Amino acid sequence: MRLPKHIGIIPDGNRRWALRNGLDKSEGYDLGLDPGLKLFKACKEIGVNEITYYGFTTDNTKRPKEQRLAFTEACINAVKLLSNEDAELLVLGNTESNMFPKELKPYTTRKKFGKGSIKVNFLVNYGWAWDLEKLALNDGNKVVDKLKSKDISRIDLIIRWGGRRRLSGFLPVQSVYSDFYVIDDYWPDFKEDHVYEALKWYDEQDVTLGG
Amino acid sequence: MRLPKHIGIIPDGNRRWALRNGLDKSEGYDLGLDPGLKLFKACKEIGVNEITYYGFTTDNTKRPKEQRLAFTEACINAVKLLSNEDAELLVLGNTESNMFPKELKPYTTRKKFGKGSIKVNFLVNYGWAWDLEKLALNDGNKVVDKLKSKDISRIDLIIRWGGRRRLSGFLPVQSVYSDFYVIDDYWPDFKEDHVYEALKWYDEQDVTLGG
Repeated sequence: MRLPKHIGIIPDGNRRWALRNGLDKSEGYDLGLDPGLKLFKACKEIGVNEITYYGFTTDNTKRPKEQRLAFTEACINAVKLLSNEDAELLVLGNTESNMFPKELKPYTTRKKFGKGSIKVNFLVNYGWAWDLEKLALNDGNKVVDKLKSKDISRIDLIIRWGGRRRLSGFLPVQSVYSDFYVIDDYWPDFKEDHVYEALKWYDEQDVTLGG
Repeated sequence: MRLPKHIGIIPDGNRRWALRNGLDKSEGYDLGLDPGLKLFKACKEIGVNEITYYGFTTDNTKRPKEQRLAFTEACINAVKLLSNEDAELLVLGNTESNMFPKELKPYTTRKKFGKGSIKVNFLVNYGWAWDLEKLALNDGNKVVDKLKSKDISRIDLIIRWGGRRRLSGFLPVQSVYSDFYVIDDYWPDFKEDHVYEALKWYDEQDVTLGG
């Protein structure tokens, strides 16, 4: 089976899950932690080299404060959980804004935990325009070397939970050639089988890199 | 019905259609002209404001010469066909390379035909990295104002024919929030119903712009 080296994860549907289950929207995020860890373990076992999780964006921080605090807390906890695993962790986002949680500052340079067997990137207070704004004017460097997200490689497969068929600002440059797989279930209803279905589908796609 | 203002069109599957019908790959492109015109007419009638067609990319020019000549010819003819309609036409791409057909140079500034009732953008020898390479360093302008494609607005809905679920480098910045609808049929098998299905689906989506 041809495996994607790098998978992007858009873990959407937490708020819709919460509403459907009689909870407040802000109570949905916490339920995303366990899925995130399960997904990490499944990818590691399969032999994926790199995963990028879409934590929250600068756009998301405009939501009601209660939600913002809840998804920020969930991201902090997710990164802490992952730091107990065998991974090389990087948190990427705009640290100059006070929306960036100080608890995650230590992770903004890539850090090895355990044997560092798999790269894990976690986008926190990320914005696509922020990512692009330092692309320099004809200085001889390639566009990708000027990205703020230059430590995140090209993405082969993006899996999005929650049924929406859009990138929502997720790493526009690394996503230019990515195959995009959408799962209708909400993220808190994650099952390993979702990943296996996505990988099976990916294996059937050709790889042309736009050629 | 909530209509997309701007639709991106990825007219894929010409070569696969040709092979399936016992033709050479390069013979498929010509069959894309009629669909392109039908799509234009359908969008105009529905009241869409802007359409962007993915003609060919700098990546595509690495294909065998016979194919390259065939898709270049098809793009030239498509633009000529559209110039007989009621539209404001813009051809966008890297004109500094000799892969850009000189016949299309006159269209690289937006030109009005008829009453200019709908904006039509046609990407010819376009490259995503080329598009981004002039984004300037902190000069106070927004990222989008620095794009080479700055005359092309944010895209609400992208429709791709040919079953592939990827952007293939299509306008990464204008696509950050786009809803993405994939049609399995190859582009030469275009029917107006494809567009109506896509619009019906789009109408059921929410619009959050990443919020």
